[in-house]
Amino acid sequence: MAEFKTVRGMRDFLPEEAKLLRNIEGRAREVAKLYGYKEIVTPIVEPYELLSAKAGEEIKSRMFLFKDLGGRDVALRPEFTASVARLVATTLRNEPKPFRLFSVGSIYRYDEPQKGRYREFWQTNYELMGSSRPEADAEILLLTNSRMRAAGLKKFVFKVGHMGVLRGILTEEKLLDKVQSTVMQLMDKKQYEDAFKLVESADVSETCMPTLREMIDLKGGNVLDVANQVADLVKNYEKSVEAAKNLKEILDLILKSGVDVEITVDAGFARGLEYYTGMIFEVYVPDLDIALGGGGRYDRLIEVLGGDPTPAVGVAHGVDRMMLALQQQNSHQRTVPQSKKERTVLVIPVKEELRGEALRVSEMLRKAGMPVELEAMGRKMAKALEDADRRSMTYAIIIGEKEIKENTVVVRNLIERVQNVVKIEDIAESLKS
Amino acid sequence: MAEFKTVRGMRDFLPEEAKLLRNIEGRAREVAKLYGYKEIVTPIVEPYELLSAKAGEEIKSRMFLFKDLGGRDVALRPEFTASVARLVATTLRNEPKPFRLFSVGSIYRYDEPQKGRYREFWQTNYELMGSSRPEADAEILLLTNSRMRAAGLKKFVFKVGHMGVLRGILTEEKLLDKVQSTVMQLMDKKQYEDAFKLVESADVSETCMPTLREMIDLKGGNVLDVANQVADLVKNYEKSVEAAKNLKEILDLILKSGVDVEITVDAGFARGLEYYTGMIFEVYVPDLDIALGGGGRYDRLIEVLGGDPTPAVGVAHGVDRMMLALQQQNSHQRTVPQSKKERTVLVIPVKEELRGEALRVSEMLRKAGMPVELEAMGRKMAKALEDADRRSMTYAIIIGEKEIKENTVVVRNLIERVQNVVKIEDIAESLKS
Repeated sequence: MAEFKTVRGMRDFLPEEAKLLRNIEGRAREVAKLYGYKEIVTPIVEPYELLSAKAGEEIKSRMFLFKDLGGRDVALRPEFTASVARLVATTLRNEPKPFRLFSVGSIYRYDEPQKGRYREFWQTNYELMGSSRPEADAEILLLTNSRMRAAGLKKFVFKVGHMGVLRGILTEEKLLDKVQSTVMQLMDKKQYEDAFKLVESADVSETCMPTLREMIDLKGGNVLDVANQVADLVKNYEKSVEAAKNLKEILDLILKSGVDVEITVDAGFARGLEYYTGMIFEVYVPDLDIALGGGGRYDRLIEVLGGDPTPAVGVAHGVDRMMLALQQQNSHQRTVPQSKKERTVLVIPVKEELRGEALRVSEMLRKAGMPVELEAMGRKMAKALEDADRRSMTYAIIIGEKEIKENTVVVRNLIERVQNVVKIEDIAESLKS
Repeated sequence: MAEFKTVRGMRDFLPEEAKLLRNIEGRAREVAKLYGYKEIVTPIVEPYELLSAKAGEEIKSRMFLFKDLGGRDVALRPEFTASVARLVATTLRNEPKPFRLFSVGSIYRYDEPQKGRYREFWQTNYELMGSSRPEADAEILLLTNSRMRAAGLKKFVFKVGHMGVLRGILTEEKLLDKVQSTVMQLMDKKQYEDAFKLVESADVSETCMPTLREMIDLKGGNVLDVANQVADLVKNYEKSVEAAKNLKEILDLILKSGVDVEITVDAGFARGLEYYTGMIFEVYVPDLDIALGGGGRYDRLIEVLGGDPTPAVGVAHGVDRMMLALQQQNSHQRTVPQSKKERTVLVIPVKEELRGEALRVSEMLRKAGMPVELEAMGRKMAKALEDADRRSMTYAIIIGEKEIKENTVVVRNLIERVQNVVKIEDIAESLKS
């Protein structure tokens, strides 16, 4: 039979990688706790109508979409936000606001697989729903900063923009919503000339094109200055001025928080998801040309899904990409010293008749909280020790006939190659020393 | 717009349930460590051909099957074993045996939803691959015992059988593999008469039907006796006798392990998955008529998937069902006393201009490991405190203009309704007392 492979774009995490994945997940959970975000778990399979409601054309075309046996159009979630918003629009509708909600799990997009990009990938996701205020935006960005540090990343930069600035111009220039979305998506992909052509074709005012052209060059790390320059540039568009002021307020709060965080404001920055309405951001590490996380404000989504008007801001972090960044960082560092290695113990019966005793001793040790592995291949002693050596195990506990009658075992230190007869109740103690 | 719901058979875990889910997951991970099982993470989307190779007709018909955009037949995994076996047949092919592998995640079957049964459900899964020996079977069963106890379940019973006994009879009676599988599935559903009719129609020997009829009544808690009776009953079928002896060996090892575990041997017990070849078992709690976990030996699956011949034994535990059992158990117990409740802290700026300071103090406290929530609704002080009361929070940290200039805050105990001015660096200390 032909060899089975994973589906294209999917992958297995072997033990070392799975450990890193779970480690990052655990630290994300700690960060959620520190900021008061409660974990929820939503289904991976959701109604296609929900997932496509405000996702944008591009993501819609890249969903794993199918009919279940009941003929329903369903899809694998391409992100968490629609599911969390559904929950807030329905089950949690009458609960006191704000909601701070945390999710972690796998996400599905039919992208072309490449380094750090899979069709099944992992995200951690934080949503703050119910607050329209700039401190909520600031919190999501500061939380992301803590999240990146907790994962072990040292150097990273935030790129921050505001959908309201561009939307304000396009709305006052009376572009249709659908055209606006296409413009945003083109700008997200930095296809500025295509975006501008589309805007120009809509018979816009004289100030529009020069404003847009100047806007995409407005960026920098002196964040309050850039925000002021944006406000000045868009002064003919009332809603855009409001947006620029909102951006400035958020940045001001972040500065006042005293947290050391590197930010570049980018006035021409846009994000692919259609539902963003306010501040947007992404976070990058220097060596990697892909965002490790991104998010922003989306004040209308919950209403679109049939809920009460509920302003909201959120962020998703790409776990696979974080792993990639961590592996790159760590490759510059020394490997973990041998002494830091976990102690591993193999229990070996000297003959078949003592397997029950070996099981008994193993269970006793586990009950006392000590991880042990039982020799389960029926290997002779020499072979079993050889195998333990090859796998760099640290101890063997040998169950012999004479010893077990005296309630003892032989404990062999496989590194130092010494062994002692030890009472069963003293095994744990003997391995500590 | 109509209200969005979850897809039929899928569900959300709200914070309390999500916490229980993650708690059970965490404890399963500890048990994996105690027994030397390394965690791996395999994709939820797998080739249909892989998942259907040895799954049995019934599970095949209940898969979430679809074509991806590349036209591949893929499905959502209805269990973990096929994926783990794929890994051992391919990537891990040349690694030293045995493999002890642990998985946790969601699983998909198009079943009729009912209490404790969802179309997306959660399992923890342990596979021991590479060993054909009875101590491996015993280990999987003892591990399940530890797993159930670690989850907090106190009373549960194992039902143990052996596919080899029935298979031995049907094979020596020359029934086709496909017919054998159907017989097993009928017996799994306790549709004995249908199963027997099918066997009878295959022109079997005179001893066959009486043996089968007697077999399904052979069960009991005196496990070695029952195993001996089985061996005696099937004495005309050589392979079945071997199987009965293997079952007895496994049970004998479990008894010798000294672990207090309640077992009923059931000679007529069968399981729906087609790949089982040896010992099989399920575990039940008294109040619930569904298995919380089940598994067994499958010595041919890895070879069927194109790998080297690799004997294997494994078990999967249903996390949703465990949650149900725990919730039922706990409903008989007292609720958690108030004193055990986690401390929750709300940081409130007395006016808008102090939001930056409130962010700064919040970040300082989080950096010191203290979870705090920031008031992010722009509520006035009285409203904010009211809201904190309604949510039963334990402390408010109030950021006032005068206080912050003196590097202090007001710490208010919301339960005892007393408050003190505290230096910022002493906040953590003041909440401890």
